[in-house]
Amino acid sequence: MYRKEIKVLDCTVRDGGLMNNWQFSDEFVKAVYDACVASGVDYMEVGYKSSEKAFDRKEVGAMKFCDDKDLRRIFGDNNTNLKLSAMADIGRIEPDDIAPKSESLLDMIRVACYVHQVDKAVWLAEHCMDKGYEVTINLMAVSTVMERDLNEALEDVNKSKVPIFYLVDSFGSMYCEQIELLVNKYRERLPGKTLGVHMHNNMQLAFSNTITGIINNCNMLDATLLGIGRGAGNCPLEILMAFLKNPKYKLRPIFDVIQKQLIPLQKEIDWGYHIPYLITGALNQHPRSAMKWMDSDNKNDFVSFFEQFLDHEDL
Amino acid sequence: MYRKEIKVLDCTVRDGGLMNNWQFSDEFVKAVYDACVASGVDYMEVGYKSSEKAFDRKEVGAMKFCDDKDLRRIFGDNNTNLKLSAMADIGRIEPDDIAPKSESLLDMIRVACYVHQVDKAVWLAEHCMDKGYEVTINLMAVSTVMERDLNEALEDVNKSKVPIFYLVDSFGSMYCEQIELLVNKYRERLPGKTLGVHMHNNMQLAFSNTITGIINNCNMLDATLLGIGRGAGNCPLEILMAFLKNPKYKLRPIFDVIQKQLIPLQKEIDWGYHIPYLITGALNQHPRSAMKWMDSDNKNDFVSFFEQFLDHEDL
Repeated sequence: MYRKEIKVLDCTVRDGGLMNNWQFSDEFVKAVYDACVASGVDYMEVGYKSSEKAFDRKEVGAMKFCDDKDLRRIFGDNNTNLKLSAMADIGRIEPDDIAPKSESLLDMIRVACYVHQVDKAVWLAEHCMDKGYEVTINLMAVSTVMERDLNEALEDVNKSKVPIFYLVDSFGSMYCEQIELLVNKYRERLPGKTLGVHMHNNMQLAFSNTITGIINNCNMLDATLLGIGRGAGNCPLEILMAFLKNPKYKLRPIFDVIQKQLIPLQKEIDWGYHIPYLITGALNQHPRSAMKWMDSDNKNDFVSFFEQFLDHEDL
Repeated sequence: MYRKEIKVLDCTVRDGGLMNNWQFSDEFVKAVYDACVASGVDYMEVGYKSSEKAFDRKEVGAMKFCDDKDLRRIFGDNNTNLKLSAMADIGRIEPDDIAPKSESLLDMIRVACYVHQVDKAVWLAEHCMDKGYEVTINLMAVSTVMERDLNEALEDVNKSKVPIFYLVDSFGSMYCEQIELLVNKYRERLPGKTLGVHMHNNMQLAFSNTITGIINNCNMLDATLLGIGRGAGNCPLEILMAFLKNPKYKLRPIFDVIQKQLIPLQKEIDWGYHIPYLITGALNQHPRSAMKWMDSDNKNDFVSFFEQFLDHEDL
């Protein structure tokens, strides 16, 4: 599968940090960065751009803030082809926290929002564009949005200057026919905009849904090393890169960083496919209850977890 | 996704046994059987029907032979709606090893073959039909078969009495567009026959490819508990059952047997997605080299494994 417009965005640190409060060593973040550079990945999302008022540095690591001094300590001046991105969550960032692009190592700000926050997201994204950044809007949890509300949100995005819009399967609850319908709706209602996909692996469909996105002309593809990410994790970068036939992408640096950094990390953080995540995904629920269950002593008592959701008469 | 013609076949013991030479306890096999019965699974493939001359009982467990006395010890008279199946590999079974259906607990014999063995497979399958069994032919490794040879094999199957034919992704190397093309070819060239799918998970596409099969009217669906199976394993039964909306299927017994039997087994057998299996899958190779690598001391040296396959100039 080769199409020159395709761009791959690694969000290993940003999404993986949801599992360890971004308590990554500088060495780990730099190793991921070096692998992205060497393998030809187009963007690396290094963390969140958050207000210092919204989170406590005693609890979360530096990549929750993406302060320029932290970025420069790790990435130097980033004189590479790899673009750096940070995600901004509506409500957790003040517009003034974002420096002009000329003063920042970041190339792109991706604004994540729920459907009721789309107007704020458009405002913030355009604010970031005015400051010189590339921007996207990533509409989360679309699997729970009513059609009327989604159409209205798409109308707002369509009227905006924002050039890139993401289909996000926050709960890992969608399969190919749902992806196809939404992508086609997005394309129809957002003429001229680039579409992206960010998929989760609760039902082991993150890579497959990304393929469905590719087939339907989505050109921004999110993935993470060994699928690290919240709960069941994301589309694995190594599978995506092995699938894309673009000669600019190299696999060896990807396997190298996985064996040196991700495999050891698996001993500390237990992301990936597990039955509680399947259950929340299949039921189109936020994974937070499954994450809590996986952190408890009875994490392998799947039946008890399942019973919480259902009428006990008919299991 | 509901279609009343759909049948689910659990091959936990048969395919999982490729990882431990079928050295399962009777208790394990019985627990899988009980879960299949309680959850409404249609078929359970309990092992291989093999000649005693072809394998040594000191090396392989009872389910490599599926002797009726072993089956009756575990399943009694199987007075349930669950049908029992065994797989027969061409060349590892004599026709006389197969008793008449009236003397056997097995309901179905599935004949597995490579493309050059299709004539033999048709003969053996029709022999089993004459003895009273349901039968299928499962054509393995189709991802390496040339179009001309495949067409000829399908012509042979089409002329036979064999009612069910399987699309098998032996190497876990196919994605949705390839599955769709092959299923449509099979349907066109095998009018009136039922189609089945048996997928492997090297690229985390086993469930997704099974969905593609469902969408394209395949009605026999193979899966295993927690995806256990050779190498990267199979389509996970629990995900498939959560996806199918047929009210006859129940999830609770599936989760119950997974937590009681499969999770403990994971400590002994390391099946599932690992980078060496991704590499053989992406390169359309038999997983045997990856399985050997995973059994070695340097199983996590993915770069060295990868380098064996490629021109070193351009990784």
